[in-house]
Amino acid sequence: MKHIINHKQTAIESMLLAFQYEHQSRVNIDTKHHIIYTPKTKGVSLISGGGSGHEPAHFGYVGSGMLTASVSGELFTPPFPEAIMRAITLTDNGDGVCLIVKNFASDVEVFAEAKRQAQAKGHQVEMVIVSDDVSIDNKTTYSKRKRGVAGTVLMHKILGYFNQQGQSLQALTAIAKDVSPHLLTLGVALSSAELPHTAPFFQLDKDEVYFGVGIHGEKGYRKEPFQSSEQLAIELYNKLKHLHQFKQGDHYAFLINGLGATPLLEQYVFANDVRRLAALDKISIDFLKTGTQLSSYNMQGISLTCLKITDPSITAALQAPVDVSHW
Amino acid sequence: MKHIINHKQTAIESMLLAFQYEHQSRVNIDTKHHIIYTPKTKGVSLISGGGSGHEPAHFGYVGSGMLTASVSGELFTPPFPEAIMRAITLTDNGDGVCLIVKNFASDVEVFAEAKRQAQAKGHQVEMVIVSDDVSIDNKTTYSKRKRGVAGTVLMHKILGYFNQQGQSLQALTAIAKDVSPHLLTLGVALSSAELPHTAPFFQLDKDEVYFGVGIHGEKGYRKEPFQSSEQLAIELYNKLKHLHQFKQGDHYAFLINGLGATPLLEQYVFANDVRRLAALDKISIDFLKTGTQLSSYNMQGISLTCLKITDPSITAALQAPVDVSHW
Repeated sequence: MKHIINHKQTAIESMLLAFQYEHQSRVNIDTKHHIIYTPKTKGVSLISGGGSGHEPAHFGYVGSGMLTASVSGELFTPPFPEAIMRAITLTDNGDGVCLIVKNFASDVEVFAEAKRQAQAKGHQVEMVIVSDDVSIDNKTTYSKRKRGVAGTVLMHKILGYFNQQGQSLQALTAIAKDVSPHLLTLGVALSSAELPHTAPFFQLDKDEVYFGVGIHGEKGYRKEPFQSSEQLAIELYNKLKHLHQFKQGDHYAFLINGLGATPLLEQYVFANDVRRLAALDKISIDFLKTGTQLSSYNMQGISLTCLKITDPSITAALQAPVDVSHW
Repeated sequence: MKHIINHKQTAIESMLLAFQYEHQSRVNIDTKHHIIYTPKTKGVSLISGGGSGHEPAHFGYVGSGMLTASVSGELFTPPFPEAIMRAITLTDNGDGVCLIVKNFASDVEVFAEAKRQAQAKGHQVEMVIVSDDVSIDNKTTYSKRKRGVAGTVLMHKILGYFNQQGQSLQALTAIAKDVSPHLLTLGVALSSAELPHTAPFFQLDKDEVYFGVGIHGEKGYRKEPFQSSEQLAIELYNKLKHLHQFKQGDHYAFLINGLGATPLLEQYVFANDVRRLAALDKISIDFLKTGTQLSSYNMQGISLTCLKITDPSITAALQAPVDVSHW
């Protein structure tokens, strides 16, 4: 597979330089540490990040009403604690720092280390770990994998809103704790992601799909022959329905997320199938978003995120306008 | 190749239903005619459309400050004149209608027919034909192909802005005529688009790229082995530089457009190469946009659009905020 880059070593910096050039009226860049950030403003500093290859996550969400800063590692590789620490010092105005981290062991480790370092220097820091992926490892333990995937973007949006409303670091952390158990995601791959100079992470037959994959080439829980968008929607929707225990009249937010190489047309066809399933169950979709929001580089596939709305303020948080490039 | 659809016959309607559901606060739908539109407002009705498979073009640009309506045909197939006529009657408030059409024979034909029908019913209608593609057919005639491609989105934005400024139908048509000769695009494919139940339009070797392709699988002017993002940027940029005759201090707008399956990371790496070439030539980039704005379904590839800014009001038009889903 061909990749429009020059050298793997310079790809992330090049990307960030062009992004910041394009959005210079909105964001600053720390080139050395791969940080995109907004100038110090009032409120908590909301920082997210992780390996690159998930664009537009997370730099596409930096700006008024969402994140204060993003820190990009190399492809599918977390940033160094030093870079996260730098993002903290660049943006903490004294109101504290909330790190929003996708639940992968290596991500959690570097963010936790940065948190320790920052606290030692007197920063108030909390960490919100997103673990929305409900895929099951049925080969061995049938345990939930609980990785952090597309739902992370909804967490950015919700915390960004309440931050703008003037909530404290402690209040934001409490909101995240309330939201987390209601935020569930499940994905399906039509092809593996393929990084430069690297073999595909898994092989699928010409007509096969793989349910329950992660966003770094992690394998799923079941392969089966591909039939239709409806087939995918039914599998993902029904798993989430079972876990959420959908009841008529319940309120939900849905995110349909393209995983990289999935045309928008196909994302919307899938969204329409989800919408019809929700109508049959008479649950209310208070918020729907369709697009490539947190990708797995060039993977063909889609994920469905479903958030139970337990309070109308969550819908308000999702619907509120923001000034970022990719929401 | 797998496609997340159910039936080819229902894909476009399903997509539009989900899109309108998601954006119901902003746009209406005429399901039968595949029209996305805003309620009648003051000003000229700006209508664009064409075959589907180019998403987010054109429905993603319907809303305040850009298009009044989009009309979607089947995949890579223009809509019927009847549907365009319906969009005209749904949106013409008496201030007239401007049809923005990509220069493909079949598109021009159906829009011209709709124009005739609408004029016969007393509508004031003008047609703006965008022919920004500067690819060369060097196999036979070395003639410019002059197809309408990604530059069409900049035309939507510019005319949408001046429409909001209260310009008349005649004034908008004159602006389009002024802008057109300065709006040039060239694209490169890393793979062919592949429609459901259809063979790829062309074959490329594993390491080959194809310069000068169109957006419906039309072949390019030269295949060569792929080396790097810079190689692609240099070819596209230099062709446009030659045609525009870049001079130090000139002002330009650039659109870097992913053609469907190209990760955002790679689009930004390419954008950075373009930015560096422009810096060497000391031309001023007054506006830069990077993203999948007018796709060729699932084609891997990228196009570069370069618009010479002949008046500061064009930059203002490009920068002005809009209320649409995909600008």
